[in-house]
Amino acid sequence: MFATMGALGLAPTAQAAQRELPYRAPRPGDFSLSGRGAAKVVIVGGGIAGLATAYELGKAGYDCTVLEARDRTGGRNFTVRGGDTTVDLYGNKQTARFSDGQYMNAGPARLPQWMVTLDYCRELGVPIEVFTNTNADAYLFNESAGMTKPVRYRTAKADVYGYLSELLAKATNKGALDKELTATDQERLVDFLADFGELGDKLTYDGGERRGYTTVPAATGTPGVLLGDVPSASEVFASGVGRYFSFEFGFDQAMLMFQPVGGMDRIPKALTKAIGARRVHTGAAVSRITDKGDRVVVTYTQGGRTRTVEADFCVGALPPNILAKIPHNLGSGVQSALEAITPQSAGKIGLEYKSRWWELDHRIYGGITETDMDLSHIWHPSYGFHGERGVMIGYYNYGGDADAYAKLSPAAREARAVVQGVKIYGEKYRTELATSFSHHWRQTPHLEGAWHNTPGGPDDPRYKPLNEPTGRVYFAGDWLSYTDAWQHGAFTSARRAVTRLHTRVMAG
Amino acid sequence: MFATMGALGLAPTAQAAQRELPYRAPRPGDFSLSGRGAAKVVIVGGGIAGLATAYELGKAGYDCTVLEARDRTGGRNFTVRGGDTTVDLYGNKQTARFSDGQYMNAGPARLPQWMVTLDYCRELGVPIEVFTNTNADAYLFNESAGMTKPVRYRTAKADVYGYLSELLAKATNKGALDKELTATDQERLVDFLADFGELGDKLTYDGGERRGYTTVPAATGTPGVLLGDVPSASEVFASGVGRYFSFEFGFDQAMLMFQPVGGMDRIPKALTKAIGARRVHTGAAVSRITDKGDRVVVTYTQGGRTRTVEADFCVGALPPNILAKIPHNLGSGVQSALEAITPQSAGKIGLEYKSRWWELDHRIYGGITETDMDLSHIWHPSYGFHGERGVMIGYYNYGGDADAYAKLSPAAREARAVVQGVKIYGEKYRTELATSFSHHWRQTPHLEGAWHNTPGGPDDPRYKPLNEPTGRVYFAGDWLSYTDAWQHGAFTSARRAVTRLHTRVMAG
Repeated sequence: MFATMGALGLAPTAQAAQRELPYRAPRPGDFSLSGRGAAKVVIVGGGIAGLATAYELGKAGYDCTVLEARDRTGGRNFTVRGGDTTVDLYGNKQTARFSDGQYMNAGPARLPQWMVTLDYCRELGVPIEVFTNTNADAYLFNESAGMTKPVRYRTAKADVYGYLSELLAKATNKGALDKELTATDQERLVDFLADFGELGDKLTYDGGERRGYTTVPAATGTPGVLLGDVPSASEVFASGVGRYFSFEFGFDQAMLMFQPVGGMDRIPKALTKAIGARRVHTGAAVSRITDKGDRVVVTYTQGGRTRTVEADFCVGALPPNILAKIPHNLGSGVQSALEAITPQSAGKIGLEYKSRWWELDHRIYGGITETDMDLSHIWHPSYGFHGERGVMIGYYNYGGDADAYAKLSPAAREARAVVQGVKIYGEKYRTELATSFSHHWRQTPHLEGAWHNTPGGPDDPRYKPLNEPTGRVYFAGDWLSYTDAWQHGAFTSARRAVTRLHTRVMAG
Repeated sequence: MFATMGALGLAPTAQAAQRELPYRAPRPGDFSLSGRGAAKVVIVGGGIAGLATAYELGKAGYDCTVLEARDRTGGRNFTVRGGDTTVDLYGNKQTARFSDGQYMNAGPARLPQWMVTLDYCRELGVPIEVFTNTNADAYLFNESAGMTKPVRYRTAKADVYGYLSELLAKATNKGALDKELTATDQERLVDFLADFGELGDKLTYDGGERRGYTTVPAATGTPGVLLGDVPSASEVFASGVGRYFSFEFGFDQAMLMFQPVGGMDRIPKALTKAIGARRVHTGAAVSRITDKGDRVVVTYTQGGRTRTVEADFCVGALPPNILAKIPHNLGSGVQSALEAITPQSAGKIGLEYKSRWWELDHRIYGGITETDMDLSHIWHPSYGFHGERGVMIGYYNYGGDADAYAKLSPAAREARAVVQGVKIYGEKYRTELATSFSHHWRQTPHLEGAWHNTPGGPDDPRYKPLNEPTGRVYFAGDWLSYTDAWQHGAFTSARRAVTRLHTRVMAG
């Protein structure tokens, strides 16, 4: 389908993709060598795209000003710590009561090895550690399939891979694949399956140590007691646990994953520091963007006063749904493109516990428990192992589930999350709870979305006014990338805007 | 087979296993409440089992003395840092030249979540972090299968799971499993396979994003270029890459895995400190163990002098092959039991590099590359991400491969490891190398083994004189456990000896 789209001009082909050269950051010598003066740039939005734009342009000495409506930079990169306060669009005010050293990443929380975000961590000196995206000891729980207790990932995998291997070995030995595979290939396949499925001598699956133990092996006298009650193949398939397995094969989700030590907002904080705090204005809500032909005028309010910034160029680095609400003279093409991209919902709740009972009682050190309930995912913390306290993510959900929780009071969100968590983890999920904080992006002022749906993809011709602007206003954001919702998209989109802007300035 | 062994009295049954009650550590009040005096115990060997014995007995106030032949405690738990010197049984002397902050764990290096070793880390205040046992971006390389370049784990998995799913879906839809599965089960199975194998509409595998990209997705204009050249099913099975997949399902190896921050020897160091350094004598090689009926006399040499310790009890916590060489009067049953357990070989080389080229060029942040070459495993470091330097484990191998490397000079071991690593990683594997250090356990004085083969398992009746000693000498070590080669085995074996000794003293 993708190839067809390319032929119709609807999607870039591999050749088009190759047109984007490796990124070359602007350099201090670019202006001094050319004899030109550094241009002035006003950047609307202090999220990752806006900060990255100012940071990269700053490398060549551009005079950048960042206008950020909220009281902090980072945009959706938001780490919640004790004392942080939010008010959502419904008027719910929350102040986080997390203990010292405890935090939740309300927005982006994980970094795959291939994303450019890690390069920024390296360049900015932000230390990283493993984000525990997958854990064999975390649970799977499909309530609607009739499961009455959770099953560990390792047990579910052993059972699914065991029966899958047994069935394919049987089919192969029956000759069902004689047309597809040579005798040698069949032999190799069956050898693989015997190992992959931990099959017995007769190529049948009867459980085994991969499922786990009720008493773990230890010293003499304690060989261990295997987890009993191996379900039938029919029971395993009916439970639907296998639906979660492919998550960890995803190009963007496969372990190993990483996170900044101490919170994801170490990245915007380091960017802001590198840009220079005096260039970054928080509490500055933009109310108009006017391209004057020879310059751009951006009007904003700060502390109740209306102010303006004039600059040679502007980079619009707000979410498209927010940009679309700001009056401008950039044309209807820009406006309709912005309006075509629609914001999506997601929410998280952080539950701080008085003890790390999941480590002590369940022997779960990090990782994600998957459910078919409306809380979707439960995350165990990837930091503070063996500490006194810890913050679980009690739900991380999207769309209608997120909006349903958002409509509740913060106390009711907590109650609903806890009732469900108790089904998986037992009473300590309730009794050990100290405090909670919930955050919903669609209901967050100045952002109003967790990520965006870009019909046709970012290269669709309708977005040309955003991607190849004719005036002095450029655009950047994860929503103008193929990795929407990832900081990588914001960074690479910012780099793209920086490259075009700088090339134009240098060409004079 | 295991059930049969139980019926014949050759292996413990589940019932027997349950006889071992949950461990209860000796307590300060045990003696004061009973009116008895604390006994004196001499512990032969300052590895994990010996230290754990002294630590646990010390909780009730036992007067413990630990005798350790080497100049450091920890036994096979050995973290090599710059300045550490070893001389092996062939006379090779090495002094590690690692930079500050760089180290290699020459012995145990990883901790599963379920093992008691983590509880000791918690109790002793040893911080832990993730050990990167599995990484989708690490490589697989089977030279003997004709592979000319490595393939990433993620790519190999996508291909193997893809074809496996396609073949099983085909067989199912042909009716090959009509006797095994109901129509509903078949439908559920095929639904699972379509997702698990990333199959297309016609349930065929044609590659996809899970394999990876040559150009990763980024901003507008860069949708990404998929890794090309999807091999055929026959090529995938012939490459043998699937043989490595089941490693991560193992009960003792499945991620998440952990390591102490700063080196595995933080554990013996913390144990030694908790015991009290004055109770631990290093450089003290035991030369005789004599059970006098009412006490035990242990003779040892230290600094050229022969000394003795008299105690109420002795715990032998050396490897069995070393214990078997020490004269004693414990009877032929003890001696033949010790001699039945045979030491095994393993070796590692640490390669310190001037840059972390595997992160910069290969985007590999930790994890293990698997090979069919004589170096077996290559480990990327699980600490120091984004630092200036790093230590790769250039080989971790066993048996004949380990012995073959051990016979070489340290320089020749390095050369042999590098020649092979270059085949996988390219020239930087050679050109960025700064220094190396290799360690082989079978050739290490006072240990002479990486782990042990215990025929029949630790509950075999021939080991009764070790497990249920009649005199005043007890035994402890991972070799008297079902988790040989793991510190968990040493800890739980020590706990078992402590329980028996303490129960006897309290019954006294």
